[in-house]
Amino acid sequence: MSKPASLAAVAAWMLTAWALAAPAPAAAQSPRPEWTIATDAAFDASSIAPYEGRHDRVYARIDRDLDAHLAQLQRWVRQRSISAQDDGIDAMAQLVADDLRELGFQEVEVVQTPGHPGVFGHYDAGADRTLVVYMMYDVQPVEENWRIADPFAGELVDHELGTVLMARGATNQKGPQRAFLNAVGAILQEHGTLPVNLYVVAEGEEELGSPNFGAVIEPYLDRLRDADGAFFPMNIQMPDGSVALNLGVKGIIYFELEARGGDWGGPAKAEVHGSLKAMVDSPALRLVQAIASMTSADGNTILVPGYYDAVRPPSDEEQRLINGLARRADDAALQKAFGVSRWIDGMRGRDAIVRNLFDPTLNINGIWSGYTGEGMKTILPHVATAKIDSRLPPGLEPEDAYRMIREHLDAEGFEDIALRRLSGYPAAATPVDAPLVQAAIGVFNRYDASPRVAPWLAGSAPFYQFTRTLGLPFVFGGLGHGAGAHAPDEYMLVRPAEGVKAAGLAEIEKSYVDLLYALSEAESD
Amino acid sequence: MSKPASLAAVAAWMLTAWALAAPAPAAAQSPRPEWTIATDAAFDASSIAPYEGRHDRVYARIDRDLDAHLAQLQRWVRQRSISAQDDGIDAMAQLVADDLRELGFQEVEVVQTPGHPGVFGHYDAGADRTLVVYMMYDVQPVEENWRIADPFAGELVDHELGTVLMARGATNQKGPQRAFLNAVGAILQEHGTLPVNLYVVAEGEEELGSPNFGAVIEPYLDRLRDADGAFFPMNIQMPDGSVALNLGVKGIIYFELEARGGDWGGPAKAEVHGSLKAMVDSPALRLVQAIASMTSADGNTILVPGYYDAVRPPSDEEQRLINGLARRADDAALQKAFGVSRWIDGMRGRDAIVRNLFDPTLNINGIWSGYTGEGMKTILPHVATAKIDSRLPPGLEPEDAYRMIREHLDAEGFEDIALRRLSGYPAAATPVDAPLVQAAIGVFNRYDASPRVAPWLAGSAPFYQFTRTLGLPFVFGGLGHGAGAHAPDEYMLVRPAEGVKAAGLAEIEKSYVDLLYALSEAESD
Repeated sequence: MSKPASLAAVAAWMLTAWALAAPAPAAAQSPRPEWTIATDAAFDASSIAPYEGRHDRVYARIDRDLDAHLAQLQRWVRQRSISAQDDGIDAMAQLVADDLRELGFQEVEVVQTPGHPGVFGHYDAGADRTLVVYMMYDVQPVEENWRIADPFAGELVDHELGTVLMARGATNQKGPQRAFLNAVGAILQEHGTLPVNLYVVAEGEEELGSPNFGAVIEPYLDRLRDADGAFFPMNIQMPDGSVALNLGVKGIIYFELEARGGDWGGPAKAEVHGSLKAMVDSPALRLVQAIASMTSADGNTILVPGYYDAVRPPSDEEQRLINGLARRADDAALQKAFGVSRWIDGMRGRDAIVRNLFDPTLNINGIWSGYTGEGMKTILPHVATAKIDSRLPPGLEPEDAYRMIREHLDAEGFEDIALRRLSGYPAAATPVDAPLVQAAIGVFNRYDASPRVAPWLAGSAPFYQFTRTLGLPFVFGGLGHGAGAHAPDEYMLVRPAEGVKAAGLAEIEKSYVDLLYALSEAESD
Repeated sequence: MSKPASLAAVAAWMLTAWALAAPAPAAAQSPRPEWTIATDAAFDASSIAPYEGRHDRVYARIDRDLDAHLAQLQRWVRQRSISAQDDGIDAMAQLVADDLRELGFQEVEVVQTPGHPGVFGHYDAGADRTLVVYMMYDVQPVEENWRIADPFAGELVDHELGTVLMARGATNQKGPQRAFLNAVGAILQEHGTLPVNLYVVAEGEEELGSPNFGAVIEPYLDRLRDADGAFFPMNIQMPDGSVALNLGVKGIIYFELEARGGDWGGPAKAEVHGSLKAMVDSPALRLVQAIASMTSADGNTILVPGYYDAVRPPSDEEQRLINGLARRADDAALQKAFGVSRWIDGMRGRDAIVRNLFDPTLNINGIWSGYTGEGMKTILPHVATAKIDSRLPPGLEPEDAYRMIREHLDAEGFEDIALRRLSGYPAAATPVDAPLVQAAIGVFNRYDASPRVAPWLAGSAPFYQFTRTLGLPFVFGGLGHGAGAHAPDEYMLVRPAEGVKAAGLAEIEKSYVDLLYALSEAESD
C-alpha cells in the first residue's frame, strides 16, 4: 500500500510546483481516451468564507500549556511502535487507549484483530454533529544514518526551518495526531465538553497496508456510519505556508505475474543451458510478451479491453477543480523535482493534470528472472516474475480490473501466466461541497493558507473504508509541516524560524480547535 | 562464453537420450522457416573402418607406467589455476611449459598477453602431418559443499563408476590434456620421435571466455595455419561407452539491453513514486516492449528482419548427419533429463534436431528492474536491464546479428534502448570427411565406441579460432568419462568398475596414441 504521509509529500510537491500559471499547449496526440473538460469555470478555495469563530480561552490555554503539549508529542514518539517488527505495538496501543480515557472519552476499547490491535474511543458530547477521527499508531522501521543518535529519543533539533521534533513518527503520524488530541484536551479543560461528538478509530498496521482495519471498525459500523465525516490529522503545509488539499485517492491493484515452466513447456524445475532455447520455451520471454500485450509500444496506453471504459469521466465539480489546479500549474518545476525531462507525449498543464487524475495506470514496480550479476551466464531460467500495480480512478473497481486483466491474458493465449493478488481496493473521493470539506477550507482560509484543492491524489490509500464502508465525507490534512516519512531524519516543525510561514504547534492546535467548532456550526447540505 | 566442458555434457545428454529410435510426427505448424531435408540417406559412423594399426610397445609402456601417468594427472590438478581469481595462474603456465620441455618439445614459450599468459610449444618430428593441440590450463573457482575436503588435493575416490580422480579440473580439462601428453611421452620413450609434428597452444583464460586467445596464437599464425588439423582432448564418453562427436558449435552474441530515463522521458536519476505512471514514462515497460518486439508472442520466432535469412541451409552432408541422429532420437528421455514437458510447439524427432541445429535463438538469460523483494513497494524504476543471448548457426555472423537487432530496435522506435555487447563470435563447423575427423571416428570405432556424429552443438565456444582463424579441421573429444565441470565433486574416471564401459586411463591414452598414428596414415582429401 502507498503511505498517506508519502502521498502527502507527493501531493505537496506536485501542487506546490503547479503554483505558477503555465499556458497549456494543444493536447498531444494520444490513443488514450480524451477526458472532456467542458467548462472554463475554475474552483477557487479563497471564495469560501474564512472561518470566523473565536475561541480565545482555548487558544490562551494552548499558548500557556504549549511546553506540556509538546511533551505529549515527545511522549508518543518515545514509545516505539514498529508494526513490521512487532516492536512496542501493544504498549503503544495501550498508551493511545489510556490517553483517550485521560481526556475523558467515555468508551475506550483495545480492539483485537488477527494482527495488531486497534483502539476505539467515543466521546459523547450530546452534540448534533459527530466526527470520526482516524489514527495510525504504528511507524516505519528505522533506517541507518540518521543525524541523531536515537530516532526514538524525541529530540528537539535546530533546523533551518526552526525548531523541529526529530523522531520516527514525528510527522507520520504521531505528531499531528497527538496535536489534535492536545486541541481536544484544551477545549475540554476550558469548556468541559466538545462542540462535536468524537469517535477515534486507531490502527497499528497502517505501515503494513491496513490489512485488518476492517476488523477494527467492524464492531462499530452502525454507530460510525451515523457520523458527519471522518478526519485524518496530517501535516500538509509547505514551509512557504501553501497547502494542497486532496479530496480523495485513486484505488490500486498490486499483483505479481509469474511465468514458470510446466506442462505447457519450458524448464519446470530449474534453469537449463541457454543453448537449449531452440527447443525449449522460455518462461522469461513469455512473461515479457504477456506484459507487453497489456500496453502500447510506448508503455503508456493500456490495451486491456474495457479498462478505460470503466473510469467515470470528470464531473462538473471535478472539472472546476481541475481548472483551478491548471491555473497554477508549473510542469517544469514539478519535472525538476522528480528528475524527469518530460511528461508522457510531452503533455503539459491541464492535460497532464487530467491524465494524472483520470487515467488508470499500469506500472512495473519490479521484474526479475535468471542471472542478474556481472558478466555472462548462459541460462534459460525456469521462472520469471514481475510486480505490477494499476492505479484505479473512481469507477474502475479492483475486482473488475483484476477480471479484465485475467480475461485479457487468457484471450491473448497467456493462460499459463499466474496472477497473484497482493492488494486491491477502490478509489475514494469526497465532494468539495460536503460540510466537513467546507469547514476545513474555511479554517485554512482563516490562517492565510487557502488550499489548492484536487479531487484526489494520483496515489492510493485504503480511504474507501471511510467514503464507502462508512459512507462519510473524508478529509486528510491540516496545518503544519513535516518531512522524512519512511526516511531518515523524519521531523515535524514545532517552532518555525523567522520568515517560515508554515504553522507551529500552537497554531496547528488552534486550527484543529477551529475545525471542530466549524464543523459543529456548518450548514447541512 | 559457454564452456566446452559443459557443452560436452549437454551434447552427451542430448545424444545419449537420442539413442533409441522414435518416430517423428508430422511437423508442428511454425512460422519459423522450414529447413529442407531432401534426402533419406543417413550418416552412420560405423561405416568408417576401425583404425587397425597396432603400437604394442607403446601400449605396453602405458600399462607399465600407468601409476606414474596417473600421478602426472594428480600433479596437474594439485596446481591451483583459478583464472577468475588469478590464483596459481603463473605457476600453472610454467608447469605446462616445463612439461613440454621435459617431453622433448624443441620450442617452448610462455606467451604474454594483456591477460593471463599462454603457452606455445612445438615438437618437430620431421613428419608429413602436423596437429595443433589446444589446451586450457585454467579452472573454475571452487564451490562450497564438495564431498572431499580439498578440491586441489588430487584425491582418488571410490565412486559407483569405479576409481575416479576427484578434483577441480579433473575433467575440465587437466585430466584429458595430461593423459594426451602421457600418450605423447610413451611414444617418444619407445620410438624417440612422433608420427606427426605437434603444436601445443594453451591458454589460461578459457573460463573467462578466452578474451586473449587470439593474442596467444597471433605470433604463430603462419606456422599454425600449415597444420592438418586442431584437436582438443576431452572426455566425451558416457558410462555406457557411448560417444557423441560434435563437429562444431554455434556462434553467439551476448549483450545487455538497457532502458533508462533520460531526455526521451522517464525518471533520469532515481526511481519515483509508482503513482506518477500516469504522467511519467516507464523504462521497465519500454524494455519489456523492446524485447517483446523481437519475438512472436510465444517467444519462439525471432521477428528481427533478415535474421533467419542469413542462416546457411543444411548441406547434403549435414542432412545425412541429421538423418543419422534422428534414427536414434528419444525426445522423452531427453526431456526428462532437462525437466521439460515438451519441446516448442510439441515438435519431436528429426524436426527438433533440425531446429536445434539450424534455428538461431533469442534467449533472456536474466532481466531485472526495480523492487524484487517480498511484498509491495510502489515505485516506477528509472532503469531496467536484460541479459540476452542469441545462438548463431553457420552463416549468421555476429556483426550482422548485432546490426540487424540494432536496426530492428531503431525501426520499431526503441532508439532509446542501449545495447551493450558482452561477447560475439561466429559458429565453427568441420566437415565429416576431413582426414582428422575420419581418423578420430576410426579410432572410436576400434574401441567399440562408434559415435553419434552431429554437425555441431547447439551450444557455443570460440572454436572459430581453429576453423576460421587457422582454417583447420577441428575435433574436440576423446574416450573417457568425467562429470562435474563447473560444479562440486568434479571427477574423471580412471579405473572403471566391472560393467562400466567407458574407457579407463590406460585405454584413453592408447586411443590418443592411435589418433596420432591414424592422422599420420590418413589419406589426404
